Amino acid sequence: MNINEIAKLAGVSRATVSRYLNDGYVSQEKRQAIKTVIDATGYTPSVQAKMLRTNKTMQVGIVLPEIRSDFACEMGDGMTSVLAEKGYYILLGNAKNSTSRELEYLNIFRNNRVDGIIFIPTGYSEEKQKFLDQLTTPCVVIGQQMKGHSCVCFDDYEAARNMTELLVRRGRRQYAMLAVSRSNWGVKQEQDGFRAVLSEHGIPDDHIIITETGYGISDGYQAMRQLLSRKPEIDAVFVAADEIAVGAVNAVRDLGRRIPEDISVVSLGDTKLAEIISPKLTTARYFYRESGVEAAEMLLEMMEGKNLTARVRKMGFEVICRETV
Amino acid sequence: MNINEIAKLAGVSRATVSRYLNDGYVSQEKRQAIKTVIDATGYTPSVQAKMLRTNKTMQVGIVLPEIRSDFACEMGDGMTSVLAEKGYYILLGNAKNSTSRELEYLNIFRNNRVDGIIFIPTGYSEEKQKFLDQLTTPCVVIGQQMKGHSCVCFDDYEAARNMTELLVRRGRRQYAMLAVSRSNWGVKQEQDGFRAVLSEHGIPDDHIIITETGYGISDGYQAMRQLLSRKPEIDAVFVAADEIAVGAVNAVRDLGRRIPEDISVVSLGDTKLAEIISPKLTTARYFYRESGVEAAEMLLEMMEGKNLTARVRKMGFEVICRETV
Repeated sequence: MNINEIAKLAGVSRATVSRYLNDGYVSQEKRQAIKTVIDATGYTPSVQAKMLRTNKTMQVGIVLPEIRSDFACEMGDGMTSVLAEKGYYILLGNAKNSTSRELEYLNIFRNNRVDGIIFIPTGYSEEKQKFLDQLTTPCVVIGQQMKGHSCVCFDDYEAARNMTELLVRRGRRQYAMLAVSRSNWGVKQEQDGFRAVLSEHGIPDDHIIITETGYGISDGYQAMRQLLSRKPEIDAVFVAADEIAVGAVNAVRDLGRRIPEDISVVSLGDTKLAEIISPKLTTARYFYRESGVEAAEMLLEMMEGKNLTARVRKMGFEVICRETV
Repeated sequence: MNINEIAKLAGVSRATVSRYLNDGYVSQEKRQAIKTVIDATGYTPSVQAKMLRTNKTMQVGIVLPEIRSDFACEMGDGMTSVLAEKGYYILLGNAKNSTSRELEYLNIFRNNRVDGIIFIPTGYSEEKQKFLDQLTTPCVVIGQQMKGHSCVCFDDYEAARNMTELLVRRGRRQYAMLAVSRSNWGVKQEQDGFRAVLSEHGIPDDHIIITETGYGISDGYQAMRQLLSRKPEIDAVFVAADEIAVGAVNAVRDLGRRIPEDISVVSLGDTKLAEIISPKLTTARYFYRESGVEAAEMLLEMMEGKNLTARVRKMGFEVICRETV
């Protein structure tokens, strides 16, 4: 069954069938005739042919750092809700925390396989900035500020300040931060926020230590063990993400120290892990799902040519006081 | 820049450039000439046009029950590893636990947007079976047996038996199961395995209770609270999935009962949650990531027309004895 045959059966011209399939104007009567034939014959138009005609793929490419991380899945859930409703499909680029794989996916998506891109970078790099600068496909970045591009960001500086304040108010003396070892706009903000609060409260520099670590639970575990063996007097720890904090909390417990009696731990994120561990994690809730929704809505506007001005949307956050301070 | 211009610059025919772009035979010399022109001009062939010519999309559609569930993401990670290496892209269908959305995605994928499908159903239904029976696109199902179709399954019966044995060996008397309320092949197997072991050990029927619940942490929490208020003498609980078990463990604790002193809890899955909660969960490790790898490899063979016989690949499992028995 092809367009010519449908046209013949419906008693209309080939051009009319083509307009019908491409959502162009067709009179009510002819529309009904074509629909009847299509329903009866079970004809399905070739998606590829339609893509070629309309120069639209109705696909959005998403490049995310790791499909197994809770926050990326939350964002993904938010995006798919918005995009699915508008008839867009998601082409998934799982970068597995590799910068080269990120660029590879961006490159593939650029070559007209998608109408738009949502990019959650592992971190900042000049290469990525340059790539985005040259990109003509609409693109929204999440969790990172890329100059000249539309971004949905978290308020890492202010959130870090708030969580650090909790430690100070608890009267702690020896401060440590487990930071993510990434060249990342947010990471820098978190460290700045942490340092600023401690400095404002007159905590001396030799009572502050910042260690970098990888992103997983086991990374947090190892980093915390090392930190406490090097500096057992630490009694306040600010961790850059829940996933890392889960490892850190386990390490503290395995070393026979009590949370929060001996050591206070705070974190950023409030993924589902935060409420599952014991004691429950005091952390800042980031609106991950909502950030996915925002990014998708921004992208939709861009793909429709409505709002092409680069914007930075900063998400709010919420301090959730549970049991670790 | 188009094919004609490239042909002119490279001093070859248009047909030769076309063969080059579609991986057909081109002499070494001409290949070099075309490559030089393409590299110099930065020409990227239209993906849509290539799809239309080759009738291949190099895309695989994945329909999964919920992007936020750990096991689905593990499977997704396994699939993307295998498929990305072969140059396939993943089109993501997030069904959000809705049967109608599952069918919607399958329907979209069928209309030649993808070369193959991996389907992780929320459960069994005749409608889905019928849909698959009529499907001509290669498809592999995970976690469910669909008659006549290639499936990667888990050994739910045997795993349920093994976990229930642990409860019996601990000398428990009042048994409960938190089952998933889905019409699902695996769910039936789990219940059968649970019942069979208890019957073999002469546990009377009135000491056995099976309750159905939803899939989330809060579902498990509520179901467990209700169960214990209805039948406080319960001392052994078999939960159908880690996610539900996390809620159940929290409910037991909130009711002031101790695990494992007062109540033993076992589960199925061994997602990352199992090791994070306290006490750590005794559960059966399902090879989720590996099942994604297996499914992708089966699908690759089918898409290449190599092995079209329907197969059922049953994954093994591993009993992980932690702290809840």
